[in-house]
Amino acid sequence: MNELLTKAKKLKQVSKRLASLSTEEKNKALAIIAETLIARKSYILEENEKDMASGKENGLSPSLLDRLQLTEERIHQIADGVRQVIQLPDPIGETIEQWTRPNGLKLKQIRVPLGVVGMVYEARPNVTVDAASLCLKTGNAVLLRGSSSAIHSNKALVSVMQEALKQSSVPSDAIQLLEDTSRETAQHMFRLKEYVDVLIPRGGAGLIQSVVEHATIPVLETGVGNCHIFIDDSAEKEMALDIVINAKLQRPSVCNAVETVIVHDQWPYISALLETLHEKGVELRGDKRLSSTYPFVREATEADWATEFLAPILAVKLVETVDEAIEHIERYGTKHSEAIISETDEHVEQFFAHVDAAVLYHNASTRFTDGEQFGYGAEIGISTQKLHARGPMGLRAITTTKTLVYGNGQVRT
Amino acid sequence: MNELLTKAKKLKQVSKRLASLSTEEKNKALAIIAETLIARKSYILEENEKDMASGKENGLSPSLLDRLQLTEERIHQIADGVRQVIQLPDPIGETIEQWTRPNGLKLKQIRVPLGVVGMVYEARPNVTVDAASLCLKTGNAVLLRGSSSAIHSNKALVSVMQEALKQSSVPSDAIQLLEDTSRETAQHMFRLKEYVDVLIPRGGAGLIQSVVEHATIPVLETGVGNCHIFIDDSAEKEMALDIVINAKLQRPSVCNAVETVIVHDQWPYISALLETLHEKGVELRGDKRLSSTYPFVREATEADWATEFLAPILAVKLVETVDEAIEHIERYGTKHSEAIISETDEHVEQFFAHVDAAVLYHNASTRFTDGEQFGYGAEIGISTQKLHARGPMGLRAITTTKTLVYGNGQVRT
Repeated sequence: MNELLTKAKKLKQVSKRLASLSTEEKNKALAIIAETLIARKSYILEENEKDMASGKENGLSPSLLDRLQLTEERIHQIADGVRQVIQLPDPIGETIEQWTRPNGLKLKQIRVPLGVVGMVYEARPNVTVDAASLCLKTGNAVLLRGSSSAIHSNKALVSVMQEALKQSSVPSDAIQLLEDTSRETAQHMFRLKEYVDVLIPRGGAGLIQSVVEHATIPVLETGVGNCHIFIDDSAEKEMALDIVINAKLQRPSVCNAVETVIVHDQWPYISALLETLHEKGVELRGDKRLSSTYPFVREATEADWATEFLAPILAVKLVETVDEAIEHIERYGTKHSEAIISETDEHVEQFFAHVDAAVLYHNASTRFTDGEQFGYGAEIGISTQKLHARGPMGLRAITTTKTLVYGNGQVRT
Repeated sequence: MNELLTKAKKLKQVSKRLASLSTEEKNKALAIIAETLIARKSYILEENEKDMASGKENGLSPSLLDRLQLTEERIHQIADGVRQVIQLPDPIGETIEQWTRPNGLKLKQIRVPLGVVGMVYEARPNVTVDAASLCLKTGNAVLLRGSSSAIHSNKALVSVMQEALKQSSVPSDAIQLLEDTSRETAQHMFRLKEYVDVLIPRGGAGLIQSVVEHATIPVLETGVGNCHIFIDDSAEKEMALDIVINAKLQRPSVCNAVETVIVHDQWPYISALLETLHEKGVELRGDKRLSSTYPFVREATEADWATEFLAPILAVKLVETVDEAIEHIERYGTKHSEAIISETDEHVEQFFAHVDAAVLYHNASTRFTDGEQFGYGAEIGISTQKLHARGPMGLRAITTTKTLVYGNGQVRT
């Protein structure tokens, strides 16, 4: 608890200085961080090895171990990520709008840092550096709360970044890791409104739920994606197959992968789609009509429609109308990314008007919901909530505004 | 509890239809609401009379009774407010940004309603109609949770609005009042994430605190304003006096009124300022130097610096530098509205760069922090938080976005 308070106060204090750093100062510090990560890679790998050893001892799954593991190549990728952030335009100080009122008051709304960002995340140690560099670029101080399974890696990465900042004009206190990873301390962190301006949880549904449940600090919710693709009766065969295969298999473990495909029952290529998916090793769970027709389609349970599989498993449902597809998405979707494959304009319009989600696609894979794919250069997460930021969050999502009003004695009458 | 769930579900259901209403349909409905409020004014006044009677019985303060009271004139003002909302441009459907990616994907970010807005407010019954009309204009359904002391007035206003909607193409279920005003039900409402998209508390610090404390739904925090005016050594005498008097006395009970004036001790007109304020009936609470010099200045307690008086009381403090003023504001301010009166450009720059607040003023009264004064036409509240909206919130603050992506078969590689 003392660690939390001490670090949070330091961050709040230092955040004032960060707000006035020039773009050049911030970019120089990022360049030194990238260099130092490479220079200190053997130390980082040594520390990561400790996490890997206890991970294996504690029986972490192979996929979790893979997320946890750092390699020389991954450290180079992480450093490259930092260098990419240098290239991004600095949003701080941007004039968003300016206008003059009839009484002569001149108003100017500018972009400023949020202050202190609290990142709460799971095993992947690369998030430690990603989040720190995005926060630094936007003049935010950052409190990192990673998983206990990555504690050695995170401590090493943060100490290397702090070491780098000491060679720059950015105060090294700007990046802090919460080393106490107890649940109790985390819950205390979620309520430190005095020192932390926003919480960004990145991870599974349980983590996000726990933050939302306990936080009094505003939360930028990210990521659970139970995404759908609706194949309309007019959909082109090859396009539909390509998109579904891409959205399911290109990287099944991510939030913008598709989890349920809804097919218009008059579409002529249902067999081709299901057989292709089956051949590619996708486990299919379908509604009654499908499971009784195709021996390799298991009958879906109610839970399957609501599940983010994050694996090569796909739920499949037949519908008779676009409306029925929209209703299904409304019921089970998580407002992340939803696609329609169709050659009928009015069906696309109907889908776009009535499906409530961050991103809607016509004839494209849901996998494009991503800061880099959107052209934002980097992302701090994908917001599935409706306030502040919706969809992929780039640098602007971790800024706020200030309105400067210039008068010459105006009073209100 | 049943009432809450029934109404919340109805609102969620109806919100889908609201999102596709045309501007014309919404404006027509607003016009009928304005007319019907006037037509049914004697019924509304009768019901308000019941609240006034129990308010007096329960010993409500004169200022609370004044806020609660409706008169024929006030009903006309409320109806005029609705007519003003008709005049505002409809933000729904606006294209915020559109761009094309190298792979040919066309992205278009448009503005859409939030869905269901939960308004939580105190005694003033006019908020019932204000909030409902702003929500209607933006295609949002609204769940109104007012104070038990205004329950008869609120029931009357909502039933009159619903009656009006029945003569329009807007579903009358779009506006719902939570009649059960128990604390337990309120706390349940704050966690109804499945049906309510955002909570907007409007009222005192206690109300806002309680919402933030219990909510899992995202909250747009509004309004506590411990606002400061800093009078620099170069400030012009008349301008400083006019601005302070306006900011303190033009309407002391509101959040953008000034609560503490910080004066550079080299400013030559300190006596003139304090004497004028004293003559105008302002109770002055000053630091030691001031209270020992001026017999009509009482010594300020620590609590005085942190208090939003909302009354003709003013804390006054001397400082030797701009920095000292900035530090005081940092310590006691609520990030609402802060002003500097100065003829020294670099001091203004310093103040604007280092004070963290929604709105900063140079040579103008803090009383301008207001949706109408900013030119937004109306406001749903003044945000003192940093996410989504900061400062006066106009119609756009109760909208979110959707990104529509148009492809021709793109998949991610």
